[in-house]
Amino acid sequence: MTKKNLIKLALVQHTCHDRQSDNQEKLTSALATAAAQHVDLIVFPELHNHPYFCKITNPDYFNLAESIPGPTTEYFAKLAKHYGIVIVTSVFERRTAGLYHNTAVVLDSDGSYAGIYRKMHIPDDPGFHEKYYFTPGDTGFKPIQTSLGTLGILICWDQWFPEAARMMALAGAEMLIYPTAIGWDQTDSDEEKNRQLQSWITIQRSHAIANGIPVACCNRVGIEQDSHITTEFWGTSFIAGPQGEILTISDSVTSELIISELDFSNNEHQRRIWPFLRDRRIDAYDNLNVRYLGKNGGN
Amino acid sequence: MTKKNLIKLALVQHTCHDRQSDNQEKLTSALATAAAQHVDLIVFPELHNHPYFCKITNPDYFNLAESIPGPTTEYFAKLAKHYGIVIVTSVFERRTAGLYHNTAVVLDSDGSYAGIYRKMHIPDDPGFHEKYYFTPGDTGFKPIQTSLGTLGILICWDQWFPEAARMMALAGAEMLIYPTAIGWDQTDSDEEKNRQLQSWITIQRSHAIANGIPVACCNRVGIEQDSHITTEFWGTSFIAGPQGEILTISDSVTSELIISELDFSNNEHQRRIWPFLRDRRIDAYDNLNVRYLGKNGGN
Repeated sequence: MTKKNLIKLALVQHTCHDRQSDNQEKLTSALATAAAQHVDLIVFPELHNHPYFCKITNPDYFNLAESIPGPTTEYFAKLAKHYGIVIVTSVFERRTAGLYHNTAVVLDSDGSYAGIYRKMHIPDDPGFHEKYYFTPGDTGFKPIQTSLGTLGILICWDQWFPEAARMMALAGAEMLIYPTAIGWDQTDSDEEKNRQLQSWITIQRSHAIANGIPVACCNRVGIEQDSHITTEFWGTSFIAGPQGEILTISDSVTSELIISELDFSNNEHQRRIWPFLRDRRIDAYDNLNVRYLGKNGGN
Repeated sequence: MTKKNLIKLALVQHTCHDRQSDNQEKLTSALATAAAQHVDLIVFPELHNHPYFCKITNPDYFNLAESIPGPTTEYFAKLAKHYGIVIVTSVFERRTAGLYHNTAVVLDSDGSYAGIYRKMHIPDDPGFHEKYYFTPGDTGFKPIQTSLGTLGILICWDQWFPEAARMMALAGAEMLIYPTAIGWDQTDSDEEKNRQLQSWITIQRSHAIANGIPVACCNRVGIEQDSHITTEFWGTSFIAGPQGEILTISDSVTSELIISELDFSNNEHQRRIWPFLRDRRIDAYDNLNVRYLGKNGGN
């Protein structure tokens, strides 16, 4: 397969409906729209098949999990081939009885499985009980080779960890992609909500900057409720270039497709201007593998 | 000594004059102004004694270096004690013949030497020939204990490396401080200049966010020329809180003092809301100590 440098990337900022078939239909329609616009790569949000079930801990929800390959990946693999588009899909993966992951699957434009990434950093916060459902990933931070290039797929909570982005870049990723489901606690003030949103955009842009590669983040949008836990997914999906510059960005309420062109050959230019990889002090980074070194009284 | 949680921090965004005595006078006057405003901690920009000599490689410029303790640190140690202010100063350090560092020195409010940090990541770019002058630091990423708390002092180019910020935080730093001398190549377009400035602000804010601690960056300002190499130092010194939110920020042309209050006890709150330190995958970070793992053809 020949690698393209200039690719057209689409993100499907998606509001989840209760029925899986409705979500599938909506993503299929987005795929057709993207194909009509000659998109090469399309990204769906994290766990796009269902409303965000991690709002509460309920053993019944393990019934939502499926294998890889399984119904979702087979369905989208056929469409990837049909349209000749690389698809980044997201699956609640049942690996065996009692062993589940939050997994991204990359389907290449010939319908083949390019690779999977199992979410490595698992959150657990009020309304986001992921440690109950997902075993931390064991794929490590290995980018996935596709016909379009080498994609560093990470998932949501990973976006807060510069370590994850760096390791993907050091392993050859030409861009970073974050399927995401993040939102506001509606009891927070507007000021706090804005600080959280700005923090989230800022840290992801910083991964582009530190590593000299583009970053794309595809978030869920809309208000979802379960047992009186309400989450307002904040959308704001975006694509940034290798200087962290925003190329396109959505708002926090609209279900929509956003599209941008990326030229991976810009990465080389950017890394020549700011050659951070040249200067990493790998002789002095041992403490990155340590939990904590400060005093107990330290913050 | 009793540790304060609420501290008043000042940054001296400084235009350098040719004569060291003029620069010293200006910083002394800034210190008096800060003292009148009950500042607890003051930060000077990187290598504030002289115009930025690394624009070219000239062995005569090694004459600008001095020992630690030496004239600069002794001078400011006396003032630290006089005003009861913790000072972060910056010295072109002569360690012995042929061995020089770019070093920050923290002088405590009783005039004692709290500690030094030798710049670990050394840049070398057109107009910034630091690898010629400075041996990479051997202090490691150890924060410095002061009467005000534990300060993670880093210097300029370090600001692009999330590894440095993380290790300071893991070693107990309650805030990050970057004395800096960064500027524009005047031949770049306004669009490129703006992208560079935004990248620089963004990545430093991201260190606050990733680590749940405030960040302060004190940059030089003004246009300096040497042998037809002109650099426009872009100022824009700022102080950000533990969500990366900007508390105060300067512009790109003014020589001025900016001041903000910081409450280190906010760090604990922030880290409870977003508990990233809980979830670091230290079992999977070995590759952070590696130079590169991708293919040669990879970007």
